[in-house]
Amino acid sequence: MNGNALKVIPLGGLGEIGRNMMALEYGNDIVVIDAGVLFPDAQTMPGVDFIIPDITYLTRNKEKVRAILITHGHEDHIGALPYVLADLPVPVYSSRLTHGLITVKLREHGMLKDARLNVMEPHFPFSVGLFKVEFFRVCHSIPDAMGIAVTTPLGTVIHTGDFKIDHTPVDGRSTDFASLALIAEQGVLLLCSDSTYAEVAGYTPSEQVVGEAIDRAMGDAKGRVMVATFASLVSRMQQVIDAAVKHGRKVAVVGRSMIGNSKMAASMGYLNVPEGTLISLNEARKLPHNEVVILATGAQGEPTSALVRIANGEHRDVEVVKGDTVIISASPIPGNETVVYDTIDNLLRQGAHVLYSKIALVHVHGHASQEELKMMLSLVKPKYFVPVHGEYRHMVAHAGLAKAMGIPDDNVFVLEDGDILELDQYGGDVVGRAPAGHVFMDGQRMLSNRARAGDEAARAAVPAAASAGADGVVEVLLFVDRRNNIIVTPPGIVTSGFVPLEESQELLEKVSENAQIPLERRPKRGVDWDNVRDEVAASVSVFLYEETGRRPAVVVKIEDA
Amino acid sequence: MNGNALKVIPLGGLGEIGRNMMALEYGNDIVVIDAGVLFPDAQTMPGVDFIIPDITYLTRNKEKVRAILITHGHEDHIGALPYVLADLPVPVYSSRLTHGLITVKLREHGMLKDARLNVMEPHFPFSVGLFKVEFFRVCHSIPDAMGIAVTTPLGTVIHTGDFKIDHTPVDGRSTDFASLALIAEQGVLLLCSDSTYAEVAGYTPSEQVVGEAIDRAMGDAKGRVMVATFASLVSRMQQVIDAAVKHGRKVAVVGRSMIGNSKMAASMGYLNVPEGTLISLNEARKLPHNEVVILATGAQGEPTSALVRIANGEHRDVEVVKGDTVIISASPIPGNETVVYDTIDNLLRQGAHVLYSKIALVHVHGHASQEELKMMLSLVKPKYFVPVHGEYRHMVAHAGLAKAMGIPDDNVFVLEDGDILELDQYGGDVVGRAPAGHVFMDGQRMLSNRARAGDEAARAAVPAAASAGADGVVEVLLFVDRRNNIIVTPPGIVTSGFVPLEESQELLEKVSENAQIPLERRPKRGVDWDNVRDEVAASVSVFLYEETGRRPAVVVKIEDA
Repeated sequence: MNGNALKVIPLGGLGEIGRNMMALEYGNDIVVIDAGVLFPDAQTMPGVDFIIPDITYLTRNKEKVRAILITHGHEDHIGALPYVLADLPVPVYSSRLTHGLITVKLREHGMLKDARLNVMEPHFPFSVGLFKVEFFRVCHSIPDAMGIAVTTPLGTVIHTGDFKIDHTPVDGRSTDFASLALIAEQGVLLLCSDSTYAEVAGYTPSEQVVGEAIDRAMGDAKGRVMVATFASLVSRMQQVIDAAVKHGRKVAVVGRSMIGNSKMAASMGYLNVPEGTLISLNEARKLPHNEVVILATGAQGEPTSALVRIANGEHRDVEVVKGDTVIISASPIPGNETVVYDTIDNLLRQGAHVLYSKIALVHVHGHASQEELKMMLSLVKPKYFVPVHGEYRHMVAHAGLAKAMGIPDDNVFVLEDGDILELDQYGGDVVGRAPAGHVFMDGQRMLSNRARAGDEAARAAVPAAASAGADGVVEVLLFVDRRNNIIVTPPGIVTSGFVPLEESQELLEKVSENAQIPLERRPKRGVDWDNVRDEVAASVSVFLYEETGRRPAVVVKIEDA
Repeated sequence: MNGNALKVIPLGGLGEIGRNMMALEYGNDIVVIDAGVLFPDAQTMPGVDFIIPDITYLTRNKEKVRAILITHGHEDHIGALPYVLADLPVPVYSSRLTHGLITVKLREHGMLKDARLNVMEPHFPFSVGLFKVEFFRVCHSIPDAMGIAVTTPLGTVIHTGDFKIDHTPVDGRSTDFASLALIAEQGVLLLCSDSTYAEVAGYTPSEQVVGEAIDRAMGDAKGRVMVATFASLVSRMQQVIDAAVKHGRKVAVVGRSMIGNSKMAASMGYLNVPEGTLISLNEARKLPHNEVVILATGAQGEPTSALVRIANGEHRDVEVVKGDTVIISASPIPGNETVVYDTIDNLLRQGAHVLYSKIALVHVHGHASQEELKMMLSLVKPKYFVPVHGEYRHMVAHAGLAKAMGIPDDNVFVLEDGDILELDQYGGDVVGRAPAGHVFMDGQRMLSNRARAGDEAARAAVPAAASAGADGVVEVLLFVDRRNNIIVTPPGIVTSGFVPLEESQELLEKVSENAQIPLERRPKRGVDWDNVRDEVAASVSVFLYEETGRRPAVVVKIEDA
């Protein structure tokens, strides 16, 4: 292949749920789609607040990066913006509500002033470098979600973002197939499509069924109704408010993010709240129970959320009583099952009537199931297909659908983060790897930077490094000859804030020796350098803790010699 | 109520999945149903191998305990027998295969010689004290599973054990409704029925659909087929062997427990293996891939299991190659989702075709869904109903079904472990509490003994105590006046194997003081003594670790003054 190929470089969200980011590169232009965070499992990674993509590839090619395009306002698509924009101060393009959410986020980080944020309506093409970009409306579990068409000199790339097909969405704005069909008519080089629910047969139900279930539950309830859902799920808030108004109830909103988002959505016109509907918790306590709805966070069992404190009898203002109805309008995100079900059990123990997704239709998710994915494939008819967003098995399932729909096996690429796929008219191939490890963040600070994906060693090693940033940072530099699979010189060690090392040349040498132990164990055939990086980090972490009782953050960098 | 009431005392398995045990008491006779273990979450409770029921209530009433009746041979029903029989050397009654599994277990513990094990055929009533006991055949995910009818002077109690209704089970032995109907005809006082899948509408599919799916997958496979399932799932082994024979393949069994169970089941006639079908892994390696089936453990992502080592490329003898088909014939047990899906992703990354329960009908579970539970209720028509086996919400859902079937609200009891339910002809009431905390075991040894059920404090405190049994045991004795909610004397401290304490009177006194801190903080209205026990244990653990750097197991006992 040559310089006239299109490079497709996923930097997050392929092989995992969250932390979405993808780069498209042609010649001297790079455009980035999304910049999200991934929330780690609190039990296995204490001290890590979230994980962002490794943008080394982008900073190395800084002069080429023209813009960041955002599909929608969920944290796993916008959460990394403050950190990415600090290194890459490029323009950001998004829809209106997404722009509102990004504005809130950047203001919190004191970065709003310098940001170059642009609001784009769907179906108004604009230029970014030599790319032509056009947003098209999709349905998802947040209003104003967009798919993106990027027209390159080689052809058009369609990135669906997160989507489902909903003919009766709460805001009345369906996935815009007509416009998509017009775009697709010119021929589509590549489709990148949401794989999160590619395992699931059939169609994802419409939001409408949830509205009906909430309405029915509110009509049946003799006492208070509490609804817990995601703070970003504006359409669910609307359904709760609509049902409350219909059944003569007032709504008290509880939880910082829920209050903030409902205010923002109402002020921007995405949430329609009849005057006098919203009341404070204090006012709610003076009303008869059958005139009250409490809308709260905590649907994922978050320990400090309103719902969990209520369930545990630890909330200052709200105590569950017999006759209360609690609606958990969400499904547990994988890994949260235990805490969510503990919360449900505790609510039941206190006598509440609890409706949750396993026993009632009080939640539908925002992702397309198999028949919808086929619909997208059949409408777009792409030459090449890259499943995006999902665990590896979701992408494999999605690839299976694409092949079954007639896309040749050789034109379907199941990638993972960091793969550099080069495409031209004649075919495609993975030609290299970009750094794409997990970058662990503690609030504002980067803790460490490691290879990813099912890597237990990395996962186990993180808490040590992460939970005690006060112990400083130890950097290990490996200079490698990738062609011959060898380390060129003994590892270099650089420390900052880690006192013992600065005082002891002997310890420093031991660290260097220790960093080489995993290198000696590496397999003869084919070295996975990401893996080596992890093992070195783990080995050095353990050694330093054993020798000094301290847990500095250990950062391993691999440089080509 | 008076001495002529029946006491129903769940000691494990109500409000959690696992560790099943229930006692029935009338006058001077107690009969115990099941004695199982619960496997803890390895991440949150390192060092704890399993959890057994607290049998304090039974040992206090030792002279009354007549027998232990076992419903079936799963670990969560038989696993605690070695520890229970050590304190309560009473006769054990079970079906034939269950007896075989119990025999293996007690032999491992050197306890077989003194055990009084009895094999009972279904529908042969036998006497245990003044109770008349009769087993009746049910379907479950292990052969020879039984429900139990216990006739007391007040009426008959039906305990279903774990069950589902399967009209086409692999062994041809359906749930025996005819015999159950005969028993029920005399009138049933109480039904205790399996709640594990009471949230799920409809019917659980028959094992037959799994056999068909495995057969089809084996017919389609071009290369090797690996099947991972539970070592106790003898019917699944049979389906794999049947399909292998049909498609001209040999079967290599991998994994200690899988090999042991398949041998035992074959020798007892529960597994039909045509001669020459089973081969060693070494022999398998010499055969063409399309003549090989590997049957392995690891369906729950157990880190040391054959499948997980294969998936991670760490198995000495088996490497996944493109063309391999892997069938995960199990669903992830709650809490295991992440490791199971990581395993699937790793197999896919290596090019295997993977079939798992989300995308193919390669597993059905062994528990009745709602329509089957209604069938049981409608057949037995009990006066009283106690849902058993399940998280709290499962039992609440099951109670809802019973009420919808016409059992009066006052006759349905959602209990939790330790509740003492007293029943007579006129009604029922929870009259007291038996100790029913989690007893944590490290192999053979008891580590500590704590209150249970969603108790994060207990969970967090355990690893400290549990992971260093070498530091000895510290017992704290609290003498309490429950009527007045007070502690009568300063806590007593008894130590064994914890050296520092024996040497220091001062430290001992500090421990006693420390044990009182949580007591001072207790609420004024209504003391939860289980909670107090936990808090005292946590407080003393932390204090001892801070003072001595050691982590003895801390056992808190509450005695009535």
